[in-house]
Amino acid sequence: MTPSERFPGAPAQLPVTTREHLTSETTRTVLRIQSRLLTATREFLYGLGFVELLPPIMGPVTDPGTRGSKQVDVDFYGHRYKLMTSAILYKQASLLAFDKIFYIAPNVRLEPTETAVTHRHLAEFHQIDVEIGDGKRADAMRVAEDLVSFVVDSIVRKMPAELELLGRDRDAFAELLRGPFGTMKHADAVADLLGLGHPQNPDAEIDWRGEEILSAKASRPFFVVDYPKGSRGFYDREDEAHPGRLTNFDLLAPEGYGELASGSEREFDYAKLVTRMRETGENPAKYGWYLDLARDGIPASAGFGMGVERLTRYVTGRSAVWQASAFPKLPGVRSP
Amino acid sequence: MTPSERFPGAPAQLPVTTREHLTSETTRTVLRIQSRLLTATREFLYGLGFVELLPPIMGPVTDPGTRGSKQVDVDFYGHRYKLMTSAILYKQASLLAFDKIFYIAPNVRLEPTETAVTHRHLAEFHQIDVEIGDGKRADAMRVAEDLVSFVVDSIVRKMPAELELLGRDRDAFAELLRGPFGTMKHADAVADLLGLGHPQNPDAEIDWRGEEILSAKASRPFFVVDYPKGSRGFYDREDEAHPGRLTNFDLLAPEGYGELASGSEREFDYAKLVTRMRETGENPAKYGWYLDLARDGIPASAGFGMGVERLTRYVTGRSAVWQASAFPKLPGVRSP
Repeated sequence: MTPSERFPGAPAQLPVTTREHLTSETTRTVLRIQSRLLTATREFLYGLGFVELLPPIMGPVTDPGTRGSKQVDVDFYGHRYKLMTSAILYKQASLLAFDKIFYIAPNVRLEPTETAVTHRHLAEFHQIDVEIGDGKRADAMRVAEDLVSFVVDSIVRKMPAELELLGRDRDAFAELLRGPFGTMKHADAVADLLGLGHPQNPDAEIDWRGEEILSAKASRPFFVVDYPKGSRGFYDREDEAHPGRLTNFDLLAPEGYGELASGSEREFDYAKLVTRMRETGENPAKYGWYLDLARDGIPASAGFGMGVERLTRYVTGRSAVWQASAFPKLPGVRSP
Repeated sequence: MTPSERFPGAPAQLPVTTREHLTSETTRTVLRIQSRLLTATREFLYGLGFVELLPPIMGPVTDPGTRGSKQVDVDFYGHRYKLMTSAILYKQASLLAFDKIFYIAPNVRLEPTETAVTHRHLAEFHQIDVEIGDGKRADAMRVAEDLVSFVVDSIVRKMPAELELLGRDRDAFAELLRGPFGTMKHADAVADLLGLGHPQNPDAEIDWRGEEILSAKASRPFFVVDYPKGSRGFYDREDEAHPGRLTNFDLLAPEGYGELASGSEREFDYAKLVTRMRETGENPAKYGWYLDLARDGIPASAGFGMGVERLTRYVTGRSAVWQASAFPKLPGVRSP
């Protein structure tokens, strides 16, 4: 069953006014669950010793590796700054202060306007942004898996009436709560998709449609690992034992909800960062403050960014991600 | 004792590199206290039944009443949007969903570059943004007072070692924790300042220097109320019993730390909003979505925005507000 079959009535655009959206019992319930989701996130990460910091919303440079979306320029006293597309550069820098950090970070990505109808993109959204000093990929995957399990368990136990009001069957989470998430290599995901007749490029990120196809076949969240070099940003570390392969991962939800999180072990070596920037078409001269820090040493790390609205959508069983935001901004759609 | 006497060694600009800032034990301690401050804020507001929502970071229009700072334009698919200078318009709208809401909201205000040396301005900062449906000014003042008391009490009890490391004497909070905050009318604040030789305009907001002078004389936080119409944004409600006077307030810290929060009872009547916009030089046509909502009815309310970095600065006893941010952006200063 494909996602568009699952959500046949899914709206093509934000279908309601701000008043209808905010006064709907559905919206209220989704936002209450989202608030609980973030409370549980903090409870879990504080319990592991993570320190929460407030992230910047703009800077001289930001994450370039965001799958074809455009960055937003702002004029900061005559300097061209960018709104954050992700907090990755600041997460690595923050490890100079603390071994384990996280942000609840706002991001802006101008996705192509045609994605306004795909149910899965907001132009403005938030991420649970986690970074673990001296961490390996396995550490980041473990934290991501345990975080999702903790959050879902918390909501299933504490908000049964809210899930029922939304028509979200608690049994949907039985597999998730029963055991570990699976892991699939990127190459195997590509083979699966080609076998299903989906034309997935083996040298690229799994495309959105491909992610939804894989997701729709699953009954619990699962990881895709070992993306090919060239498919991700310069900060995803290359596997020294397998050149051309990145020590990274995506976490996909089941039931066709698609991607929840992206993460990796990070590159932190100055020379390799410069090389990877050049390989990915980035001009190192733009990355002044970040490369200055890296030249004098930043910690090795691993981490991930998990979409707050996407996780909310999955937990609450909504057809579109805009339903998980009080003031959703769909690509190209003028709204508050 | 004036603030510049209190902080004779206060730096004229961000004096350290990002590495020095993030690896300093002082910065680490301040950021740990800030994290505790936000945890206590959530504990307190959740306990009162407030729902936390994620705020937008940009929109077609934002708060115009921000004391001479400039707004930042962004191009949102060909539409000219603004980064949020405050969340006020969205707070009023959010009351359509819940009776009591709050955000931890990022804001950007391009303050004049000369404020980079005044210790009290960041171009990017966060506010604890609270709004109470059907609330009166007294309700908002009570929540602000109780919130500050709760947060300070929590930090004094749970982080004594951190305060000691910073050289912040716990006795500084004895008066605050002992009893209610005082209240002073704007007209009396003006008279005080004129008596002290400070040329305060009686028809205007208390200027920054004036706030610091009043603040330096105090031993616990205090409110200034009843600002004259014309000194604040269109959303501060006019006192029906005293035309020309606003039902609003500022909360000032003691010891010269200056303003912590601004709040008011809100205007919500469509016709009065349009009139007040015109009186304050704003073009109502710019406020489409907001006025559309107001025409069909938004709740009466009162609320406030409290600066996270300013509250952190006060609690931790720092000489400058930039010391309360991991990646501070000073007006006009190029930095990460």
